[in-house]
Order: sequence, then structure tokens, then C-alpha cells
Amino acid sequence: MKLGVCYYPEHWPKSRWPQDAQEMRDMGIAYVRIGEFSWSTIEPEPGELHWQWLDEALEILHQHGLKVILGTPTATPPKWLVDRYPGMLAKDQQGRVRHFGSRRHYSFASLEYREECRRIVTLMAQRYGAHPAVVCWQTDNEYGCHDTILSYAEADLSAFRIWLKEKYGTVSALNKAWGNTFWSMDYRSFDEVELPNLTVTEANPSHRLDFQRCCSDQVVAFNKLQVEILRHYSQDRDLVHNYMGFFTAFDHHKVGQDLDVASWDTYPLGFLDQESIYTAEEKHTYLRVGHPDFGAFHHDLYRGCGKGRLWIMEQQPGPVNWAPHNPIPVDGAVRLWTWEAFSHGAELVSYFRWRQAPFAQEQMHAGLLRPDGKAAEGASEAAQVAQEIAQLSLATGLDADELMALPESGRVALMFDYDACWSLDIQPQSEAYRYLFWCYRLYEALRELGLSVDIIPPSASLDTYELLLLPAQVHISDELLTRLNQFQGVLLIGPRSGSKTQQYHIPANLPPGPLADLLPLTVERVDALPEHTQPHVYGRWGEGKLCHWHEQIATKLPSLLVDESGKPVLVGEGKCFYLAACLDKALLKTSLAKLAEKAGLSAEYLPSGMRIRQRGALLFVFNYGAKTGCFQPDNAELLLGSATLSTAGVAIWRRH
Amino acid sequence: MKLGVCYYPEHWPKSRWPQDAQEMRDMGIAYVRIGEFSWSTIEPEPGELHWQWLDEALEILHQHGLKVILGTPTATPPKWLVDRYPGMLAKDQQGRVRHFGSRRHYSFASLEYREECRRIVTLMAQRYGAHPAVVCWQTDNEYGCHDTILSYAEADLSAFRIWLKEKYGTVSALNKAWGNTFWSMDYRSFDEVELPNLTVTEANPSHRLDFQRCCSDQVVAFNKLQVEILRHYSQDRDLVHNYMGFFTAFDHHKVGQDLDVASWDTYPLGFLDQESIYTAEEKHTYLRVGHPDFGAFHHDLYRGCGKGRLWIMEQQPGPVNWAPHNPIPVDGAVRLWTWEAFSHGAELVSYFRWRQAPFAQEQMHAGLLRPDGKAAEGASEAAQVAQEIAQLSLATGLDADELMALPESGRVALMFDYDACWSLDIQPQSEAYRYLFWCYRLYEALRELGLSVDIIPPSASLDTYELLLLPAQVHISDELLTRLNQFQGVLLIGPRSGSKTQQYHIPANLPPGPLADLLPLTVERVDALPEHTQPHVYGRWGEGKLCHWHEQIATKLPSLLVDESGKPVLVGEGKCFYLAACLDKALLKTSLAKLAEKAGLSAEYLPSGMRIRQRGALLFVFNYGAKTGCFQPDNAELLLGSATLSTAGVAIWRRH
Amino acid sequence: MKLGVCYYPEHWPKSRWPQDAQEMRDMGIAYVRIGEFSWSTIEPEPGELHWQWLDEALEILHQHGLKVILGTPTATPPKWLVDRYPGMLAKDQQGRVRHFGSRRHYSFASLEYREECRRIVTLMAQRYGAHPAVVCWQTDNEYGCHDTILSYAEADLSAFRIWLKEKYGTVSALNKAWGNTFWSMDYRSFDEVELPNLTVTEANPSHRLDFQRCCSDQVVAFNKLQVEILRHYSQDRDLVHNYMGFFTAFDHHKVGQDLDVASWDTYPLGFLDQESIYTAEEKHTYLRVGHPDFGAFHHDLYRGCGKGRLWIMEQQPGPVNWAPHNPIPVDGAVRLWTWEAFSHGAELVSYFRWRQAPFAQEQMHAGLLRPDGKAAEGASEAAQVAQEIAQLSLATGLDADELMALPESGRVALMFDYDACWSLDIQPQSEAYRYLFWCYRLYEALRELGLSVDIIPPSASLDTYELLLLPAQVHISDELLTRLNQFQGVLLIGPRSGSKTQQYHIPANLPPGPLADLLPLTVERVDALPEHTQPHVYGRWGEGKLCHWHEQIATKLPSLLVDESGKPVLVGEGKCFYLAACLDKALLKTSLAKLAEKAGLSAEYLPSGMRIRQRGALLFVFNYGAKTGCFQPDNAELLLGSATLSTAGVAIWRRH
Ligand SMILES: [Zn+2]
Ligand SMILES: [Zn+2]
Ligand SMILES: [Zn+2]
Repeated sequence: MKLGVCYYPEHWPKSRWPQDAQEMRDMGIAYVRIGEFSWSTIEPEPGELHWQWLDEALEILHQHGLKVILGTPTATPPKWLVDRYPGMLAKDQQGRVRHFGSRRHYSFASLEYREECRRIVTLMAQRYGAHPAVVCWQTDNEYGCHDTILSYAEADLSAFRIWLKEKYGTVSALNKAWGNTFWSMDYRSFDEVELPNLTVTEANPSHRLDFQRCCSDQVVAFNKLQVEILRHYSQDRDLVHNYMGFFTAFDHHKVGQDLDVASWDTYPLGFLDQESIYTAEEKHTYLRVGHPDFGAFHHDLYRGCGKGRLWIMEQQPGPVNWAPHNPIPVDGAVRLWTWEAFSHGAELVSYFRWRQAPFAQEQMHAGLLRPDGKAAEGASEAAQVAQEIAQLSLATGLDADELMALPESGRVALMFDYDACWSLDIQPQSEAYRYLFWCYRLYEALRELGLSVDIIPPSASLDTYELLLLPAQVHISDELLTRLNQFQGVLLIGPRSGSKTQQYHIPANLPPGPLADLLPLTVERVDALPEHTQPHVYGRWGEGKLCHWHEQIATKLPSLLVDESGKPVLVGEGKCFYLAACLDKALLKTSLAKLAEKAGLSAEYLPSGMRIRQRGALLFVFNYGAKTGCFQPDNAELLLGSATLSTAGVAIWRRH
Repeated sequence: MKLGVCYYPEHWPKSRWPQDAQEMRDMGIAYVRIGEFSWSTIEPEPGELHWQWLDEALEILHQHGLKVILGTPTATPPKWLVDRYPGMLAKDQQGRVRHFGSRRHYSFASLEYREECRRIVTLMAQRYGAHPAVVCWQTDNEYGCHDTILSYAEADLSAFRIWLKEKYGTVSALNKAWGNTFWSMDYRSFDEVELPNLTVTEANPSHRLDFQRCCSDQVVAFNKLQVEILRHYSQDRDLVHNYMGFFTAFDHHKVGQDLDVASWDTYPLGFLDQESIYTAEEKHTYLRVGHPDFGAFHHDLYRGCGKGRLWIMEQQPGPVNWAPHNPIPVDGAVRLWTWEAFSHGAELVSYFRWRQAPFAQEQMHAGLLRPDGKAAEGASEAAQVAQEIAQLSLATGLDADELMALPESGRVALMFDYDACWSLDIQPQSEAYRYLFWCYRLYEALRELGLSVDIIPPSASLDTYELLLLPAQVHISDELLTRLNQFQGVLLIGPRSGSKTQQYHIPANLPPGPLADLLPLTVERVDALPEHTQPHVYGRWGEGKLCHWHEQIATKLPSLLVDESGKPVLVGEGKCFYLAACLDKALLKTSLAKLAEKAGLSAEYLPSGMRIRQRGALLFVFNYGAKTGCFQPDNAELLLGSATLSTAGVAIWRRH
Repeated sequence: MKLGVCYYPEHWPKSRWPQDAQEMRDMGIAYVRIGEFSWSTIEPEPGELHWQWLDEALEILHQHGLKVILGTPTATPPKWLVDRYPGMLAKDQQGRVRHFGSRRHYSFASLEYREECRRIVTLMAQRYGAHPAVVCWQTDNEYGCHDTILSYAEADLSAFRIWLKEKYGTVSALNKAWGNTFWSMDYRSFDEVELPNLTVTEANPSHRLDFQRCCSDQVVAFNKLQVEILRHYSQDRDLVHNYMGFFTAFDHHKVGQDLDVASWDTYPLGFLDQESIYTAEEKHTYLRVGHPDFGAFHHDLYRGCGKGRLWIMEQQPGPVNWAPHNPIPVDGAVRLWTWEAFSHGAELVSYFRWRQAPFAQEQMHAGLLRPDGKAAEGASEAAQVAQEIAQLSLATGLDADELMALPESGRVALMFDYDACWSLDIQPQSEAYRYLFWCYRLYEALRELGLSVDIIPPSASLDTYELLLLPAQVHISDELLTRLNQFQGVLLIGPRSGSKTQQYHIPANLPPGPLADLLPLTVERVDALPEHTQPHVYGRWGEGKLCHWHEQIATKLPSLLVDESGKPVLVGEGKCFYLAACLDKALLKTSLAKLAEKAGLSAEYLPSGMRIRQRGALLFVFNYGAKTGCFQPDNAELLLGSATLSTAGVAIWRRH
């Protein structure tokens, strides 16, 4: 459990740097991320490299005992580079070039740009790979930010044709896989294939899905290129990338395979205001504290992308600038978010940014310091956390590293699959249905029941879990099916699971395709509903409403919930269950409580706005609600806070 | 009264074809449409023609006694063709090329593409024109689908300049007709004229209207090119095109002149969900059955485009895939829609599609068969209709052909004019006003009064009608004026009638222009209202609200309705009436009931959600409502169903 | 107080012109604006000049004693000119060329087009500069209409690079001023700078602001080019341009410096319907009369742009055609608007247009005459105003010129700054905040208190005022700070004042920057709120709600209003006050009433919908409300109307 901060020495006079470093130390900060937007400062003219400022900055940070996460500057190539390789720029879905003037102005598929990245990363790695202050490298910055994964430029088309040729071998295999005969869409060669944008009406979903997969693979390759250089010149350093919230346009599990740690950038208020997943009521209730499951969901998701290792690279320290509205966090929120991250296994929480910049795009984005260099409100909350970590060490007899190493105790897992997400976004069938949102609402229900959850990739070992949810596992590989068959715990398979083959066909035996082995049933028809239509559901497991998606299934399995015509909605027996519809929040919660019970887990209905998380023997309690709440665990000793928590309150207990 | 189905043998192994054919027969299907998207299967390489599969498919269908409607494949030109003639692609209003990758990727005005169509249609017609199974040809597929009538490419500009030259002769005539002096928009030659898109603000409405007319004429010419070939090589076959719902971008009356039958593709649930004409309440109430007048309106409209002959080429058989939400139809809806079509004179109802495709864009669109080849729910309803037709034959002593030939008995007509529609969409004056919606609401009111309606072109004979409505007959030709003068029945002229000259000028005597001969009045000013402002109206004929459009007229005609300042809203005497505003639903209904009474027609206020239609001596009764309803006609004998009908119920009576 | 009209002789046969001129005279019209869209009539072929029609039109108007405002025709260059210089066309933000076919199809920065303007304006000025009928020239027409100030074409880029070079001298100065190091956005030369559109995410706000300033300066230069020619060839004529409502994309104060009079085009109903500033309730309440402060606000704003001289160049005479809905004005509204303009110092109110054109884009836009040449309803109201001016002359003993010259008596000023408007629109921080709307709501509150207001540029003398409001004076120059320090009256400084340097940096001492000299306080944080969150505010000056924007300030100044945590919202003492938030309407009004009281002004709470304005000794009273209202001033004599006014009623009193 360490604190960090994002710092831009190039924005400030050198004379200020020692003071900044000292103040960081004083505040309890151990890690500093630098460099990731500094290409034009490093190389103001082609080939003319200005390292001195960075040498000095590293030296000063090092002298103050700060550890450095050094960013490769490839998210912001300089103007001269873009002018030299105009073909490196991305094009949007409308075919417009996305120009220089902000950041992320490149296509992942541009081979010219990859060569420039190879050059600058090699130079940096050679120079700083063995620097004693440098303990970690961050590749690039926020892959995909500003909708930059899908690009429709010439470089992307070339990459796509190569990718397709590699996948299909012959064009007739591609035609068959895509079902191109449908509307005379057959190709005679890979060179005839175009990108799936600007078609008269929707392109073939198989075409779209393969393009999405190809674009994701370009990100993997782009990242791997940097990883290989950094591994070569900078051994024994952690490699990391900083992911984003509610972002699924590339396969984070694949990128994560090549890195040592997953990190992400958490802005609870900005995302609450911006994202359509939240209702108007949620936006109002949690205006100044963020949605109670926003941080938690992503912590658990990205810990699963990081092979168990999680950092927060950027955490909101006060009001930000980029959401439609940018309110001030409630007092204590910055601390609350930090502790929530630690409770989910974060080794490091790093605040963005050290000092509010008085110029350029983000001048209204708060830092720990104000633009005038004085401490902003966030600074005192960061300092408080640093003190509380020390206090926790004392109470537990564990140092910060040992606290970091506390084991995950999750016995519940939710499977998350980027390919499933793309598949369902391409053809949602009801615009009310979104895979990501459905996963989030399932997660929320589990968490409202007091359960600690792992969010795992389809490839993860299932051995340690007693309850496993597949929200909508669209494609079921043979290998996954085998593991599911062997799974000993309680299994809930959600609607749309097994509904497509890998090539985006309906399976020959109809959905749930291969899962019918596990659960003998057939999805005969789908009722894809508008938001306002929520049919009544009832049965042995409770009553409530279904929403958005409703499958009519044929099965002899016992029904636990049925619709008004008596057709099954939730079926299963023993340890294996199928949910044939999305359920509203209340019924989802009671159904999951039943499953938890079957799995031998004790679900606890928490007070509104309160959440708990277990890590090792520690139990963390948080209050996101507007009202004071109380949570008193059994057989537990209070280490921090109290049983009664006001808004943004935190308590830590040790369970016996 | 025959049933048909749309079938794609090219999507399935040959080994399955005989089984498909046999099952069609067993289900009571007589007609099969094939081929309309198969160009790349027929001609996978330029000039390399693969007919064998189609020969065999036709042979198998023929052996099973099925009649074939063969589609020309010009809605889906193959990739190699598009690459050879890239100029054939359309451009959208934003100037972007509309690329290959789905369907309808061509501009109607492309001369290169027309030559390719001539070639492939000639080849097909030569080969199959005399085939005994082929009883009909469908030209292309759904002209205009995906907004493809207006195109802004070079080919369209060339065509437009030629069209203008032909129409105006000299450019000074054009300048005068358009009033180009208004903003110095004068041209010195036809070569200076551009398309009316991407102008700084709205282009001249005369410019826009002429462009719309030109684009419509391109469709007529494109269709006629195919018609001439088919007439030559395939004599005595019906020629047909399949139109769409709520679609007015070309003049269907003109296209219909060159064909033998009009057909259309009816998707009651998809259109309910998608179209802005329906209120949120209507979308909720009729979620699973469709709006009660959706099918009827289009049946009557297209029968008028088909010189009295109507087919349904595609009917929704279950949930579809292309609307924002895609619910399951209520049990009985597929049957209900089929009978509604027959009651409006449809000779054939053909379901789309035989078997749900497990791949490509429409894989979530239901068929009569499921993707696994088993019968879907729609199949049993189709089979039921087939049995009921037989039952009806027995009861009436008429065979299916004779049932088809039952005369229309409509004594009420509503005049529909595509040119009027374009004119008013170009300058609606209140965004709340839409010509098509106004026509629909008038039709709905007539139908809620139990009246059977013909929807007729301006050129139609008026002799047989006792009540005639002109919803908004913008342009009044001398010829039409003469016929209106001679008309013996009750005539209602709606607001905006006669409001423009053929060149989109305000008439010199102000609206209603030439109609002032018939109804001495002048439209002095127009109150174009927002949705929330609905002034009170009352008078001898009732009271209620006006909405959207309100003309202040000067006249000495007696007022039947006036506004709150006493100004006339509905005026007339004897047999001729003028309505100076749009009325809300209730007042519209009572006003039309008064007119029906004057015309000697007996209007009946039907229970909510119920509709009737008279054809020959048969009276069809339908229940679209959520509640069970009852309708018992006088002096009638029940042939099918009962007086009391639950949701989706159908009854057929014979009137004495 | 004179009346005028906009007239297009080129739209009508010459034979009609004498009748038109005579009817204008009879109606009491003194001024006629002509010519501004007539380029293609004047010069139908390049270099072929047709002056005769204009010679004759001027002659006829002159013979009838009408004074002519002659428009330069540069808003509508002919097609041949555009074809010759295609580079003159603007490009929109999406990079699309904005084509010929309507009007305003040019970029202000095009040097080629400027040369063509120089040519045609010189020719016109030479020919008519000394014509006895011509008393005024209007340059072009409605600069910026249809969003034409910001253009992204090559000509604009060239102009921008030159402008930047002139401003910054060296590119490193530019890099520093913009903070380009932030995201490696540094340039090596001015030739590397591009326009701030189509960037991957938002461009640097300093970049955007400078581009906005540059585009505004292009308008100034474009206008000045014409002004210089006209001053040379047509001495002693007034030069004017016609501005628009709610339009801020160029600096009207700067353009106004080069002209003699400011005029604007007022369409109260069209703007009510169209503009997002108005609530649904306001749109409903004022549907037929317009918002009570719409005209007043703009009259006072543009009088400030016209160095004290104001005309109305176009006033709505009946229903228009260009808003989403176009209702008929209530009887009396045309008269009401005319008198409102006179009460704010308008010398001339000119109606748009004389006769409704029966063709082209605006055929549904009312004129004083109908398309058939008969008088429309607006004509009688114009004639009534003409008679009432005469009546007022009689009553006061002042002729129309002397009435025009009545002094402004405003003791309250509101400072309006175009640069502040652009700055805040670029980074609003809460989308609920708009500078223009905030100014309007402040103005509305003042006016509801019966105060007569001047809206002044930052450069205006402050000497005559007793109450001065700075709504959000973003940049504070040294010179302005000096004048504020010297100001003797009561000063209210609004939120966001002093919040940026001229280069769009946060000031080193934090906001309010230099204003901290005047009011010792620091803005520590900003709470940028969504629409639905309106925290409670209370204190010595009342209670209510704050909305949209809330600054947390540190200060020792006394608090007059505080938020629920006791933090100051409105502070100050003596004559100088700072408002740290936007307030809702009611609290804004009570707070301004307190300030007015401190300034020694007697604020009067007016009946709902009623407004008053003082000019010289005359007090004008208006009723915009739906109900009859009563206002009886003390010590005043009634000259026109009565104390009790029904909707659209007007009264004029002489105060003693
Ligand atoms: Zn929806
Ligand atoms: Zn509207
Ligand atoms: Zn908002």
C-alpha cells in the first residue's frame, strides 16, 4: 500500500523541482510517474535529443528517495513527426483524418509510426533502463482514449487484409465464415475486402467483429513492440499500462499478458456524470462521491487483467474538467477512493496530478497542489491516507509491502470477455441491452450482498471459486466447456451465453450452443424489449420484473422463476443454473442471494450506499451513501474508523 | 388468397432443397420468391455465369408444384463490379461515398450501372423467361431502402442537369421558375447548376423539389429498363416490385404504371417501434400487434399504386432484427396481419423468410423455420391461415382465385400525392406538421368509423366515390380541378391544398389557388404551431382542439367550426367543405362522421382497437386491442371466428 | 423616430414600383433599404454591369421622398464568381466545403473574394455615392448568419498563420503563450500551426481562442475594406451594418468602431422558439409576443456597439418561416416591438420586408404586404405607429428628429465583452453555464426591477453610472482595473471575472486575478454543477438557490449570502461586491434590488410580464404578459395609452 503522483517537471521551472520533491516526500508519496507526454521536450527537432532536463529531474526525485515510473512518450508524437508521416494519422468512422493538435493522433496499425516508436523507446530505454530511480515503465498512455482503437485509414486497411489472410488462409474460407453469400458480399481476393465503415446500411457483423479483433490485435502488437525493447534494456523493472474506466474497445486481457501489472485511471465523479449506464437518480444521489461500485468493479476487472497485480495510476484528486459538469468531491471522497482501491489489492494509488497546470486543455483539472503551488484539498486527504497506512501497519504488524501482499479471498467470480462485449455491441437486438452494463449490474448486486468478487478472463482457473457467473459468455470454446464441466462450485449462466459461434453464426443446435451439454435447454426465440416494457416474473425464488432481454427457452429443467405465461425464466438444479432474461435490480439481488446460499456463502444485505470488501483477514467498510450508516461485523476487531460511518467514511476491521 | 414465402436456396446445401419444397407445400404455400440477392452466386467472376444451382432450385420448386417469383439481383451488385465502376456508388447528403459491404450500393442515375443491369437482367430473362415455374418477376428489391433515392454523386449531377434542360429548355426559364433572383442564385447555363446539398443554409425549395422529382424519375427509368427486357423475354408473367412502409421518396404511382401488381413488405412491429408518427402510448399499447392501421393504410395505398392489384411480398413472421427493439409478436398476430391483407384485396401474402439465416446481417430475423430447420411459431399461424382459406372457400363456394377477385366496395377515397408530400416536407413551416402523418391520421379516423377506404392517386377516376378527402393536395392541375368540379359526392379539402403552383410558388391569388373556384375563400395567414399549443375549436359540428397547422381564412362560406376568436376553421355547404387546420383525433373523427353522414354513408364508432373491412359481401373484423372486444354486424352470417374477439382475433362475416 | 422598410424591386415588375413607393409614403414610411442581395442582377455576367434597373428604382423612391439605405451586395456573390474563385468558399468544422446555392457562401479571409468585393463596392459607390436619395450604406448583410464566422479553409489557415506571427513574433513565444509543452504540442514554425478543428480530442483552448479572435478580426478587416471605399466615394452618409440576435461570434464593438450606427434584425417570435436560453414555460407563455427582454437586451447591447446610435434594420412584421414553428404574433405585437425599440433610443425601425415574396427560400416569411400585394396585418400596425409618433410630437412639441435625440438616462450599466464570451464558451466547465445567458438573466432581473440599463463595452466610460455589473469579465486589463478603481458607484463583480489572463492561463494569484486588488479574495475551487443540482443559499440579503456555477472563495470580506456549509457566496462592503455563484431568478432579483438601493436607485418590482423604460423625460410602459396589467407612475402625465394595459399594450408618460 503505497501512494504515488503524476508529475510534469517540463511544465515548471527547474528551480521549483527540489521543493516539489520534498513536499511529495512530506506528504507520504513514494512513487512519481513522469515523462509520458514529453516527446517534443525530449526531441524538439528531428534527431536533436534534449535529455538533460530529464536527467536532472530523475536525479532530484532520486535524491529525495522517490521511485519513478517512466512513461514512454508515444501518446503525443510531435508535429514535425506527424508532418513527416501524415499516413500515420487515424481516420474516424466518417473517413475524416484525425489531426494533430491534442493527443493520441496516430493509428496503431501505422508501420511508419511503429518505427518511430521503436526509435524513441529504444533511446529512452538505453539511457534510463538502468537508472536507479526508475522502477517501472509505463507504455504510452491510455490506449484508446478519445475513441482511438478503431481507425479507418489506409494503414488500417492494409493491416486488416494481412490479418484476415493469416486467419482464413483463403478468401473462400472468409466468404463462408462471414456468410457473404447473404447479400452477394463475396470477395474474390483479400485485396477486395474493405473496412466496414461508410457502407450503405450495416456491414456484415462478422466483418465488423473481425475488424474489431484486428484493431485490438494492433494494440497488442503496438504495446509488445515497446515491451520487448524495455525488457531488453531495463531488466527487473515492472512494465505497466494505464487503462481506463468503462472502456472495452481492445482486449485488455491480451495486452495484460505482456505486462507485469495492470493499472487504471479512476475518475469517479467524471464517469458518473458522463456515462449512460447511470440513471438520473444515481447521478443525483452520488454526485459528489461517485457510484459505490464504479471503482470496485474496475479494480476487480483490472486485477484480473494484471495477473493479480493492480495499481491505480491516476486517481481523481478534486474536481476535473472533462465531464459535462464537474462538481467538487465531498470531503473525504479522495481518501475513500484510495482505501477502496487498497481493499481490492491495489499496491499503489497514484494521484493525477501533482499540481494543477494553469495552461492548456486541462487547466481546470485539480491537482494535489493548486496552480499557485499551495496545497489543494486533495493533498490533505492523501496525507491522511499515508498516516493511516502507517497506523494500519502498526496495528497489524505488517509493513506496507506486506499489506500489499495480503491474499485475495474472493470465492465468487464473474467472467468478463472482451470478445463477448464486441459481439453483443455489434448486434444488441434491443438498444436497451449492453453487455458491459449487464456485467456491472450483476457485479453491483453481488457487492450489495457483501460479497467480494474476482472478475476473471475466460482463460482463468476456476478452481478456487464457489460461485461463478457467466453474464453473457457468447462464444464457448471446447476448452472452456471442459473447465465448466469440471467446475465444482455453483454456476450461473446468463442469457446470450453460447449464442454465437466464434465466427458469429447462430450455433447449429441454437443457443446456448455447446452449453446445452451442461444445461439441456434450447433458446427458441428472443423477446428484445424497449425500456418501458418490464414483464412480471415470479416463482419459487421470488418475484419482480425482467427487462431488456427475454429468451423463450424449451427445457425440462425445473423452473425457479417463470413469466406470466408460465414460461421458464430461471432454471436449473443442483449446481448449474441458467438465467434466460435480464432481471431488475431487486430480483437480481434476491436471485443471487439464493445462489450464494447454495454455494455456501453468507450474503449480507448491506445498508443503502454501504459496501464492504474482504482482503486477507482485513474487512474494509465504506459508506458512499448520503446518510450515516452502520455496519458491525461479527467476531472482528476495529483497526480504523468506527462501526458508524458518515458519508465517505471508511472503517477497517480484522476478522478472527 | 394465396400464401407465399421468400426463399434463399443459395444459403443452404442442395440436399436440403427438396425437403424445403415439400414442407412449403405441406404448409399450404403456393408461391416462392427467390434470387433477388444472388448476383455474386450467379456471376462470381465477371462474365463467368453459374446458372446450374438456379436451374436446379427452379426445377425442384417446379416439381413440387410451387410457383416462382424470380427477383432480378440488381440490389446487390458484386464487389468486382463496383470496383470496375466506382462512379456507380451513391454519395450521401454529406458528400460521402456510400461503399460496398451491405446492399443497395448504387446510384439510380449511374449509366454505367444501368448497362450492367441491362446485361444481367437480359441474361436472366433469356434463360428463365419461359420457365414454367416462373410466374412473376420482381424488379430489384425495395427501391430506396436505407435512404437510397437521393444521391449526390457526379452521375446524379449529370442526370439532374439533363433533366432540368429537358424540363425548362432555357436557363432563364429555370431562373424564373425557381425565383433565383431572390439571393442572386441565377445561373448562366445548366452546367452551372449544382445539387442542393452542402449549401451554407437551405437551398431554394424549388431547386430541392426539382431534384427530388428528378431522383424519383431516375427510379422510374431504372425500373422501366428492367421491365422492357422482362416483357420482351418473359411474356405473360406478372411484373412486380416490393415497396416499403412509410416511404415516399419516389413516386410509387409512376413506377406502378409500368408494373402489373404492387407489392409491399410489411413489418408491423418493426415499424411501430421505429417510426416517429407513433406516440409513446401507441408504441406501448400495440407493442406486440402493431398499430391497427399500419397494414391497412399501406394495403390501400399500394393497391392504388398497383392499378387495383396488391400483393404482400414480405410479411413479418416473428421478431425481426432491425428496429431499436425487437419484441415477439403476440400469438395470432401473424395470422391477423395475413387476414387484414386479404381483406384489403391482397391476392398473395408471402412471408419473409422461409428459414432464419444463421449468419450475416439478418441472423436475428425470424423465419417460418428456425435456423435449425424446425418450425418456428409463425409457421403454425401460416398453416392455420391456409386451412382457413380452404374453410372460407367451402363456406362461400368460391375458390382461392375467386376469393382474390372479390370486388372492392370502397365508397370513400383519400387522395395521396407523392409530389405534395415532397413539397410539404421541404418547407413544413412547423416541424410538427408532416403530410404523410396527416394522411395517416385522417385514414385512421375514417377506419375507426368503420369505413373502407381507397387511397388514390390524383389521376384516379372519382366516379365511384361518395366521399372524397384531399388531405393537402398542394398542386392542383387544371385537369384535376375539372374532375373535382364534376365530382358528385361529398368533398373535403384539407389545409395546404392548392397552396403552391407546380413550380413551388405561392399562387397569385393566394392559397387555395385554383380551388378558390370550388370554394370561395382566401388563406390570409398561417399559424404554424408547436406541439404543445393546441387552440380550442368549437361550432355546429362539435368541439375539440386544432394542432400543428392553422390557416386564417377569409370567406363567406358558412362556418361549421370556428376558433376562439370566431374565425372559421371548417367551412362549406352542400357537398364541398374546406378544413383550414389540422384537428386532434377526437374532433377529426366527429367531423368526418358528419361528412360521412352527408355522403349517405353509415359510420360506426368501433370499440377501441377493433377494425372492420368490407370486401364484396364479406366483412372482416379484427381486434388489435389488448382487451377482448365485441362486434356484431346486422344482417350478417358468421363464416369464421366469433363476434367476441380476444387480442389478435379475426372474424369473417357474410353480409346479406 | 422614423419608420423604414426593406424592399426588393428586382423581385417585381417595374410597373409596380411607383405604386409601392406611394403606398410606403401613405403608410408613414420614410426609409427604404434596397440592393443587398442583388449582385447577380447588377452583374449577370462577369464585368457586364446592369445599372439601369437600380437607377430607375432609386429615382422612383427619390421622387416619392423616400430615403434610401443602399446595401452592398457582397453577401450573395453570383455563381460565375464562385466558379472562378472556388477557394473563396468557407469550410465547416467538419472540413466540408460550404457550397453555392443559398447565401453567405464565402470566407471572410479569402483575399480573392476581398478583391472582388473591392471591385463591386467601388463600382456601386462611384455610381451612387452622391445620389441624393442615398442617405446610408449597409455593408453586406448579417455578418455571421448561418454560422459563417469560423471557417476552416485554406484561406483561413493562411490568415491565421499571418495573424499569429503578427501577434507573437516568434513561435517560441506562441508555444509559451499556449502552454504547448503540455501535450508535446510545440511548433517549430508558424507554418506548422494548423486550425483547431478535427483534432483527436479538444484542441488547446488558447489555440481555439486565438483562432476565434483571428476570425473576428477578419470580419473587422472585411468590413473596413468596404467602409474605406464608401467613405471615399460617398461622403456624409451614415454607414451601418445589420447585426443579429443572440450572436456573439465576432466582436461587434470592434466592427462598430468603423461604422456610424449599429443596427440589428429583430425577430422576437422566431428567436423565442429557436433559442435554448428560453425555458419551455417561457416559450409557451410568450409564444405570440416574444420574451419581454429579448428586444430590450439587444437594443441596449447594440446601442453600445453603435457609439450610442441605434437602428432596427429588420423587424418581424408577422409570422416568419425559419424557426422550428412559426406562429402568428398577437394583435398589437408589431406595434409593441416598434415602441420598445424607440424607447431604447432607436432612431429608425425598418420592417422586413415590404411584400412577401411568392418564391424561393423565404416565401412563407410575412411582409407588410401579402404576396398578392394587399396589406397584411402588420401594415396597419406600422401605420398606427406612424400616427402615434405624430401624436407624440404634438403632445411633446418635439419633432421626430428631436424625439430621436432624447437623451439616455441610464444610471445602471452591464459590461458585455465578446472576448469573455468566447473564453467561457470554449471551456464552460459546466455545460449548464453560458456567458451570454448569464448576462441576459442579469439584465432581465434589472429590467424586472424597472431599471433602464446601458450595456457597455469594457472600454466605455464609467463616469455616469451609479451601478455597474461585470457579469463575468474574464480578462482584466490594467487599464480597466484603473477605471474600476476610480469608479464612484456601486460595483458588482460576477463569478469567473478575472479568471484568465489574456492568454487563457489561470492567473498566478488565482482568480479573480488582478481584481483581488479591488476585492481581497481568492477563488480556491469551482463547483461546476448540473442543471438539477441547485444548492440552498441564504444570508442577510435573502435566501434562494444557486445554480450552474459556484466558486469556493477565501476572503475576509463580510458575507451577505452563504451556502449551507457557511461558505461565502456574495461578499463585499461599501461600494464593491463579489458574487461567487450564479443565482436563481428570484434571489438574483432581490440581490440586485439591494445593490440598486445602495446605489441610490429606486427599483420597482413590476407586475409579471410588464416592463418600463425611461428615455429623457418620457417613460414607456409595455405589457408582454398574457393578462391585463396596470402600472401608474408617480408624478407623470399620460401621453399615449392608459395605466391599464392588455396584452401587447403600450403607454407613454411624461415624468415631471
Ligand atoms: Zn430504447
Ligand atoms: Zn416542435
Ligand atoms: Zn447538463
